[in-house]
Amino acid sequence: MLSQTVINRLKEIVGEKNVVTDKTGLFSYSYDGTLLSGEPLGVVSPQTTEQVVELVKYLNEQNIKLIPRGAGTNESGGSIPVENSVVVNFARMNKIIEIDTENFVAVVQPGVINFDLQLELEKKGFYYPPDPSSYKASTLGGNLAECSGGPKCFKYGVTRDYILGIEVVLPNGKVINTGGRNFKSEPGYDLTRIFCGSEGILGFVTKIIVRVIPKPITTRTMLATYEKVEDASQTVADIVAAGIIPTTLEFMDHLLINTTEDFSHAGLDRDAGAVLIIEIDGYPEDMDEQVEMIGEITKKANAREFRVAQTAAEVNQIWTSRRCAFGSVSRVRPSYGVNDITVPRSNFPQAIEGILKVAKDFGVTIGVVAHAGDGNLHPLILFDQRNKEEVETVHAAEQALCKMALGLGGTISGEHGIGLVKKKYLDSEFTPAAMEAFRRIKKTFDPQNRVNPGKIVNM
Amino acid sequence: MLSQTVINRLKEIVGEKNVVTDKTGLFSYSYDGTLLSGEPLGVVSPQTTEQVVELVKYLNEQNIKLIPRGAGTNESGGSIPVENSVVVNFARMNKIIEIDTENFVAVVQPGVINFDLQLELEKKGFYYPPDPSSYKASTLGGNLAECSGGPKCFKYGVTRDYILGIEVVLPNGKVINTGGRNFKSEPGYDLTRIFCGSEGILGFVTKIIVRVIPKPITTRTMLATYEKVEDASQTVADIVAAGIIPTTLEFMDHLLINTTEDFSHAGLDRDAGAVLIIEIDGYPEDMDEQVEMIGEITKKANAREFRVAQTAAEVNQIWTSRRCAFGSVSRVRPSYGVNDITVPRSNFPQAIEGILKVAKDFGVTIGVVAHAGDGNLHPLILFDQRNKEEVETVHAAEQALCKMALGLGGTISGEHGIGLVKKKYLDSEFTPAAMEAFRRIKKTFDPQNRVNPGKIVNM
Ligand SMILES: Cc1cc2nc3c(=O)[nH]c(=O)nc-3n(C[C@H](O)[C@H](O)[C@H](O)COP(=O)(O)OP(=O)(O)OC[C@H]3O[C@@H](n4cnc5c(N)ncnc54)[C@H](O)[C@@H]3O)c2cc1C
Ligand SMILES: Cc1cc2nc3c(=O)[nH]c(=O)nc-3n(C[C@H](O)[C@H](O)[C@H](O)COP(=O)(O)OP(=O)(O)OC[C@H]3O[C@@H](n4cnc5c(N)ncnc54)[C@H](O)[C@@H]3O)c2cc1C
Repeated sequence: MLSQTVINRLKEIVGEKNVVTDKTGLFSYSYDGTLLSGEPLGVVSPQTTEQVVELVKYLNEQNIKLIPRGAGTNESGGSIPVENSVVVNFARMNKIIEIDTENFVAVVQPGVINFDLQLELEKKGFYYPPDPSSYKASTLGGNLAECSGGPKCFKYGVTRDYILGIEVVLPNGKVINTGGRNFKSEPGYDLTRIFCGSEGILGFVTKIIVRVIPKPITTRTMLATYEKVEDASQTVADIVAAGIIPTTLEFMDHLLINTTEDFSHAGLDRDAGAVLIIEIDGYPEDMDEQVEMIGEITKKANAREFRVAQTAAEVNQIWTSRRCAFGSVSRVRPSYGVNDITVPRSNFPQAIEGILKVAKDFGVTIGVVAHAGDGNLHPLILFDQRNKEEVETVHAAEQALCKMALGLGGTISGEHGIGLVKKKYLDSEFTPAAMEAFRRIKKTFDPQNRVNPGKIVNM
Repeated sequence: MLSQTVINRLKEIVGEKNVVTDKTGLFSYSYDGTLLSGEPLGVVSPQTTEQVVELVKYLNEQNIKLIPRGAGTNESGGSIPVENSVVVNFARMNKIIEIDTENFVAVVQPGVINFDLQLELEKKGFYYPPDPSSYKASTLGGNLAECSGGPKCFKYGVTRDYILGIEVVLPNGKVINTGGRNFKSEPGYDLTRIFCGSEGILGFVTKIIVRVIPKPITTRTMLATYEKVEDASQTVADIVAAGIIPTTLEFMDHLLINTTEDFSHAGLDRDAGAVLIIEIDGYPEDMDEQVEMIGEITKKANAREFRVAQTAAEVNQIWTSRRCAFGSVSRVRPSYGVNDITVPRSNFPQAIEGILKVAKDFGVTIGVVAHAGDGNLHPLILFDQRNKEEVETVHAAEQALCKMALGLGGTISGEHGIGLVKKKYLDSEFTPAAMEAFRRIKKTFDPQNRVNPGKIVNM
């Protein structure tokens, strides 16, 4: 528990109303997108960089750990409080500081919700491509710290590709600024990207300069339905081989078709083995030809149905299916574990096979939703968290999935990060020398191990 | 001088013919793209990662510094040997290991020349976008270490955006591998990009996995000629505002028009104040409309002439003008200093004004070639290196250029790096805390300061 002196000082720094210490209040900050939890001593919500600096300095003096937190939607345990910690909640640092349409740049505070930025950008004809499925809740700070992807990465890349500069409060309370509004910069090594994907273990990001792009002129959304999973995989390979670069190539299997259909009523074929959501964008003149080519390709790959969304409502329905995927499975079993393996795209069919094998070997139910164009698969393992034995089986199955992905030249995390959840598998992806580099970089920035300790690597 | 024992051991490691110790031999490795020089004790050319490991371990034992080197074309003094050093020349590690067209990936050794990769890719219908003007000589390892840009960055981004994974021999001789063929990966923080742009001061890159893209279906190359520099700047702003994303928006001023014309005979208008080279690519159907729009825009901005290249030969001639820009000025004065300032694109006109002012204030001749779409300007200061007084004036003018760029929200280096040349200006861009971070990261990887010491920061 925090002493009254500490509480008073925290209130001085961030304001009376912005310090939480009551049981119920703390409880709501003890979770994230995973099934893990941990209770903090307190939650503070700063509004300025100066307040963050003050908080860091003061809590360092008190020897209390700090946990940066955006919206808490991460799937890695990244924002789970550890013992003797205070959560630094960025929800109130939610100002869009500037949208600079001349330079294709937006400057935001870290607590800005991805969707809110999209709305403001849209008014000016712009767009910020990295929009994870959680974009209605997740924050730019969280997106940066996780180097989040999303359904548009295949064409547009991930968060890392859109960060031009940041302001960071280091674990020692000092402030650094990296990058700027320049589209190119190479003064010394890339401090910006050391933080991008560092899961809040190297410092607190307090300002972000992102690159934005003009909103695509036209978009077409398609849905292809398959009897067999292999045929969907084949379609992905064939579209790419035809030289088409869709923005989106999303995959859902039979289980996910059914669970999402319960929510979205998009009219997906409940008997189907798999669907692909395919989206292209570009100049209006190019659309018809590409849609036709894609239609042909799906037919050749034995698609049962190929549908082009005709209205905005239909587009929306298809996307709702996809965006509700994670939550939708909770009707089947009370708990689910989200995996995040990624393989070179050409190994996508083998990865699907591998998942089926793991499901069989371990006797677990797995539904698959995937950013197929990126080779990024999210096998969702369904179970009941209250059943201890089942939980152990699930962990073993997760480990088998990671091993399978590595065997296919893949990685244990495509976009959700390591946090607590994947920490025990990290050294199966990296040599001891690389593991040592991870630890040393952490130590460089945070010698006392005060900021988000225990995430990614043990010190 | 290296002792015979050391020479013998080096020869054992890399082979008799791959160790240089004679005066003339050493001399050719004492230069790079700048006017600096420094003589190494020896030059070794390994062919495998294992040999690099052996070299690093052995030279560490001997307390001899190591200088990684690609083609030596860098413009920052990055590969200049320091005292008591041996150059590790990657020219023989020039194998294209694999071109994986299914996954849009190429795997190369660091000594592969950018152009050689382009040729091999072209045979398979692919393309590697970051092609610096030096691409016929410079290596992928050098490109990576400098995070090089080039004339196509405006649409396609810089080297950093195309590196998927690397193998690195650390200063302690241990090997790490980062990334892979996955389009997304976020296992721990971004080790790959810590090395990208680190100018060879953190270790030796011995393998590179790059992302490649299908060769653009159609390209159109245009040339617009202006009386006044401001009109060319205006064109850049107007093209972007019209929602067109050209691959290329290159700028040359009156002086450069004339010096390059001496070489390329591209038929540039020698009286003009500035030219823009504009290139677009994409689907054939979109080309005409965009060319027409660009033509209109240039006309509105008072272009004297707007020309669309009609033949491959004409395209080639225009590009030869641009690519020979740096060298071409040496007919005017014996020496030139390449600057690399970058500003937010909207400040491009002010940067041009600033350059004119510096030229006037310091009484120096400056020619400007620029990647205008990126706001990246290369003011070339012409002088005579033998005149000491003039050299000092040039340094003062360079410093003024850096200050001017920073004042416009820019950076002192867009794509050439810091090396030795810009080191003294780095702390005018960064806070002491950031400078400290640079030094600490160097120390993390190279506690003994053995690999390329003295570049970027003093330890
Ligand atoms: C339904 C659902 C769908 C999802 N879809 C996707 C998807 O498509 N693609 C994808 O990549 N992910 C997805 N995710 C995962 C998650 O949404 C992302 O990781 C997201 O970026 C987290 O943002 P957040 O604001 O919730 O951050 P949090 O969960 O609060 O924090 C994430 C990490 O960032 C750190 N952090 C937060 N703010 C800061 C800061 N200002 N400075 C330093 N560190 C900070 C935290 O300490 C933590 O380690 C999904 C999650 C859910 C629940
Ligand atoms: C005419 C001309 C035009 C140019 N045009 C451009 C341009 O358009 N855009 C641009 O960005 N640059 C340009 N440059 C600069 C230069 O060509 C680039 O910086 C290039 O990437 C350097 O490659 P290199 O092989 O010559 O490397 P080098 O000059 O040999 O080395 C560059 C740096 O990389 C390090 N290094 C090299 N290999 C390795 C390795 N394997 N592992 C670790 N470190 C290594 C060296 O220590 C050094 O610090 C130009 C230069 C010239 C002379």
